[in-house]
Amino acid sequence: MSTFNPHLVATFPPPVMEARRWIEGATFPAERPLLNLSQAAPADPPPEPMRRAMAEIVLTEPAAHMYGAVLGLPELRARVADDWAKDYGGQVNADQVAITSGCNQAFSAAVSTLARDGDNVILPIPYYFNHKMWLDMNGIEARTVDTDDSLLPDPQAAAHLIDGRTRAIVLVSPNNPGGVEYPPALLAEFRDLCRARNIALIVDETYRDFHAVDGAPHDLFSDPDWGDTLIQLYSFSKAYRLTGHRVGAIVASPQRLAEVEKWLDSVAICPTGLGQRAALWGMENLGDWLAGERQEILRRRAAMDAGFAGRNDWGLLGCGAYFAYTSHPFDMPSDQVAKALVERASLLVLPGTMFGPLRTQGGTGRAEATLRIAFANADLPGIATLFERLDEVTRSGL
Amino acid sequence: MSTFNPHLVATFPPPVMEARRWIEGATFPAERPLLNLSQAAPADPPPEPMRRAMAEIVLTEPAAHMYGAVLGLPELRARVADDWAKDYGGQVNADQVAITSGCNQAFSAAVSTLARDGDNVILPIPYYFNHKMWLDMNGIEARTVDTDDSLLPDPQAAAHLIDGRTRAIVLVSPNNPGGVEYPPALLAEFRDLCRARNIALIVDETYRDFHAVDGAPHDLFSDPDWGDTLIQLYSFSKAYRLTGHRVGAIVASPQRLAEVEKWLDSVAICPTGLGQRAALWGMENLGDWLAGERQEILRRRAAMDAGFAGRNDWGLLGCGAYFAYTSHPFDMPSDQVAKALVERASLLVLPGTMFGPLRTQGGTGRAEATLRIAFANADLPGIATLFERLDEVTRSGL
Repeated sequence: MSTFNPHLVATFPPPVMEARRWIEGATFPAERPLLNLSQAAPADPPPEPMRRAMAEIVLTEPAAHMYGAVLGLPELRARVADDWAKDYGGQVNADQVAITSGCNQAFSAAVSTLARDGDNVILPIPYYFNHKMWLDMNGIEARTVDTDDSLLPDPQAAAHLIDGRTRAIVLVSPNNPGGVEYPPALLAEFRDLCRARNIALIVDETYRDFHAVDGAPHDLFSDPDWGDTLIQLYSFSKAYRLTGHRVGAIVASPQRLAEVEKWLDSVAICPTGLGQRAALWGMENLGDWLAGERQEILRRRAAMDAGFAGRNDWGLLGCGAYFAYTSHPFDMPSDQVAKALVERASLLVLPGTMFGPLRTQGGTGRAEATLRIAFANADLPGIATLFERLDEVTRSGL
Repeated sequence: MSTFNPHLVATFPPPVMEARRWIEGATFPAERPLLNLSQAAPADPPPEPMRRAMAEIVLTEPAAHMYGAVLGLPELRARVADDWAKDYGGQVNADQVAITSGCNQAFSAAVSTLARDGDNVILPIPYYFNHKMWLDMNGIEARTVDTDDSLLPDPQAAAHLIDGRTRAIVLVSPNNPGGVEYPPALLAEFRDLCRARNIALIVDETYRDFHAVDGAPHDLFSDPDWGDTLIQLYSFSKAYRLTGHRVGAIVASPQRLAEVEKWLDSVAICPTGLGQRAALWGMENLGDWLAGERQEILRRRAAMDAGFAGRNDWGLLGCGAYFAYTSHPFDMPSDQVAKALVERASLLVLPGTMFGPLRTQGGTGRAEATLRIAFANADLPGIATLFERLDEVTRSGL
């Protein structure tokens, strides 16, 4: 019998697939159908004009069916660079942009340029589970730093964790799972810390397009030397509903992208020709549509804020972009709560235990006390339904 | 300045991208346009009925645009299992099939379930460069075993390389870069060796659909316990011209695929919805078309065999599926030969130095003496042109 890589065996299984198994084969009452708020996945396909453009590409652009450059379609890299320079107010060139097969791949590629077995990387908790998984399966220690009641980490606390084998600090803003948007000054503080210690600052901005603040969410790119420290990750999946086409990006120094190119060549060869062309078409044609999508998601966010404001049994720690992160009132750990909510409320959300250790060092047991609700997948009536169901189980108990 | 993973820095850059740079900006005489035989990449898009089916899916199947299961579309996994059971004459179940974003990803995922930093994996030389790259960047030692004049490795020679940290032997059949098809008995011998030593046998069958032998290329799946040792890799890219859509597969035990699922979740989330549906459509509808494609490629192979038979300055070591692997008559190393062929013959092929160390231990310096020609990309007139140009440079020197 052939053997197994012990690092991978010790890694926890994909939480989203585990959650899917909770609802597999389950039946739900007709008057209370499943409300699935587990994954940050748009409920609809791309808008119809984009689907028509994609069909046209399939029929008429042979190159879309063929291998492309490892680091992505040159026109898409250039467009990202131009838009970033405008949106963030700084200098970003096409050779500082790589296209990846989704943002998880952007993260795994970026980390692979930085760290090897025995190194360590710092993550605030709650963390995004795939970040933790990738570190675990590569034998890279995830050093976790607690966050405050607004789910923001303290740079000084992170500084204490840095040693000679620390390679990066990873921040996600707007945060997954927490929803919180990191203030620009805090991001700059982390950048300064990383630069002083010769480690990388990875900022995952998958949910950037739904940030509540108009204009640039931070000024990290206005630093002309940003490339010595900053690695930004991005996803086209949420903005243009392209989750099934796997298109993301890494913005980093050309030297780092030369290493990314080796890794991506061995893992992907290239991102899909159609997905990349769809992303480019979206950037060229869907600006107004995306602005409307953002407004709709901000309305949903406001509905979540308002809903939890009147419900004292629930404590809203963070709310923004796609996610609300909330404490629950039940006297059981969150993984049991989440499973009971499927059965009792036809509601699928993810437990805090998927986003952090059960008990943090000197911490609060927050993982067991919290749930992540991917509210952006629900429209306003869906959010009203969510609160009806939460009220019912709050009243009746689980 | 943030630092770099030394394993990745020590890994060579993507050979295909390097070869692309040789022709970037180059101009070729009108009467002698570029003949690009560098990459195993179909020169045409998928056949028109498939493109129409894909456009229809884009327009009418919302699920094709959304996240799917990490291990792939259930219908595609089931179809692969059924076809494999029929084609190879053995038991293969849907839960023994995972769909990946191309076959390079199938390899990197499979190896990640087996080996970690400090382990080793055995590769015959010439090797497929992305296999070597993936091992190098993960700190997994590639132990190379020489091949004979037919490019076949000796199981006994491989056995001598196995130690307590050896995790797998990797074979590619039909071979990339060598073209050689491994005899079933040799594959079975390697399987027995791997089983006896508790290591995995990875068999990469990317080019299986163009194997010259009718019927099953080996009987490894007829062994009811195949899953304890065998990991088979496959690609839909070549059969259905889907290179730009990135669809491949791993056939292995369910226990191993549970580990593959963790790795793929962190690296890809899922293969593309459209690519998987196109692959399934191809399996359902393009059987006769693919049989015709195979016959055409076998005709091209015959033309290669016949062409080299009459040219004694060139020595054909292997020829099959997509590739011919040949010695060249020039008194310079193959990487210089390949660059000179671009300039002097408007011909892009890859040098043996991309597929193995310059000098093998006690070996022949074969890497410097050889070239890989991806002949399947050229039609018969293209192959005639190839030989005209080879004759000219053989006569005139480089």
